[in-house]
Amino acid sequence: VVADYSLYFVADAGFAAGRDLLPLIEAAVRGGVTAVQVRAKDLPVRQFLDLGRRAADSLKRHNIPLIINDRLDIALACGAAGVHLGQDDMPVSQARKIVGRRLVLGVSANNADEALEAERLGADYIGLGPIYATSSKTTDLPLVGEEGIRRLKGRVRIPLVAIGGITAANARAVKEAGADGIAVISAILGAPDPEAAARRLRTSFPA
Amino acid sequence: VVADYSLYFVADAGFAAGRDLLPLIEAAVRGGVTAVQVRAKDLPVRQFLDLGRRAADSLKRHNIPLIINDRLDIALACGAAGVHLGQDDMPVSQARKIVGRRLVLGVSANNADEALEAERLGADYIGLGPIYATSSKTTDLPLVGEEGIRRLKGRVRIPLVAIGGITAANARAVKEAGADGIAVISAILGAPDPEAAARRLRTSFPA
Repeated sequence: VVADYSLYFVADAGFAAGRDLLPLIEAAVRGGVTAVQVRAKDLPVRQFLDLGRRAADSLKRHNIPLIINDRLDIALACGAAGVHLGQDDMPVSQARKIVGRRLVLGVSANNADEALEAERLGADYIGLGPIYATSSKTTDLPLVGEEGIRRLKGRVRIPLVAIGGITAANARAVKEAGADGIAVISAILGAPDPEAAARRLRTSFPA
Repeated sequence: VVADYSLYFVADAGFAAGRDLLPLIEAAVRGGVTAVQVRAKDLPVRQFLDLGRRAADSLKRHNIPLIINDRLDIALACGAAGVHLGQDDMPVSQARKIVGRRLVLGVSANNADEALEAERLGADYIGLGPIYATSSKTTDLPLVGEEGIRRLKGRVRIPLVAIGGITAANARAVKEAGADGIAVISAILGAPDPEAAARRLRTSFPA
């Protein structure tokens, strides 16, 4: 079964700023997200593990994959479905050697070269971005834009998940450019009603 | 083969403050260290991996085990012999489930309860400390002292490696209290001649 990355919620502990992420993840699931990543760069390992385990338990009941950011060991320990690797994290070829087919491996890419390289080295999907300017992640990377999606589309066979500044207002343009999915942080975590926000994104970017 | 933890060098990237750790590790090996841990809490993953791989290659030639601090995934990726887990890191029982017998697992303990629990859950050795006051790690933990080593000795079967404020001047007292090994950061990394410093420790705490 190929996972559905069409509405991919990145639950970022840093952005949540102390709020427990689990109720926010569950609200997003009610709103229609199809995949969830837990990102917790600055959380102590035991808290990251605890959050990961609770999220894995909850998401399994909905048959929604949980992806852990960066740490393969935490993904394995909490029974997650996969790991998402940034360009500064472990190379996907090495991650694949460690986990074999036990975990889905996603890789961040900012351009066609990085995306093609990630696919060649064994990635299961690409997180392509930043598409638009975004406040939830500080970066010096050039914007990919809709044109960048369009140029890459058809050159990789694995799913292309667009990330960075995506909202219900621009999601349709991202889909028309060729993205297989959209990933969001602030469009859900920064919304007054995360469930309603997920539902609006779902409408703008149907599976 | 049981590893020799009698002179255990913790090569801490934070303490090294930008110096490449590999030549320092190699100097410590010439001076007689029997085990090396690489600790790099704040290093980007790719730098941590690169350092780990270079250290693993070098140490294999000397048949000295490389232990990686905290991250099982990095230990697996760089071919290390083991992982050292603090009380805030992944519980050793879970780490064991992930790596089986592929890696040695060490656990930090501050008292008998933590040490006995770690042994029960599958640790291969205990890092017991802080024995004395130390400048290289800020901590609120109570000092274990020589008396703490003496009280624990005979109650655990796995090796007890004493850490915290150990120098060539007090190493003999630590051995007499019953430690199977000593672990040091600043006594080697803070010395003007790390090789000579390791050699002095080796003399004060023979294997």
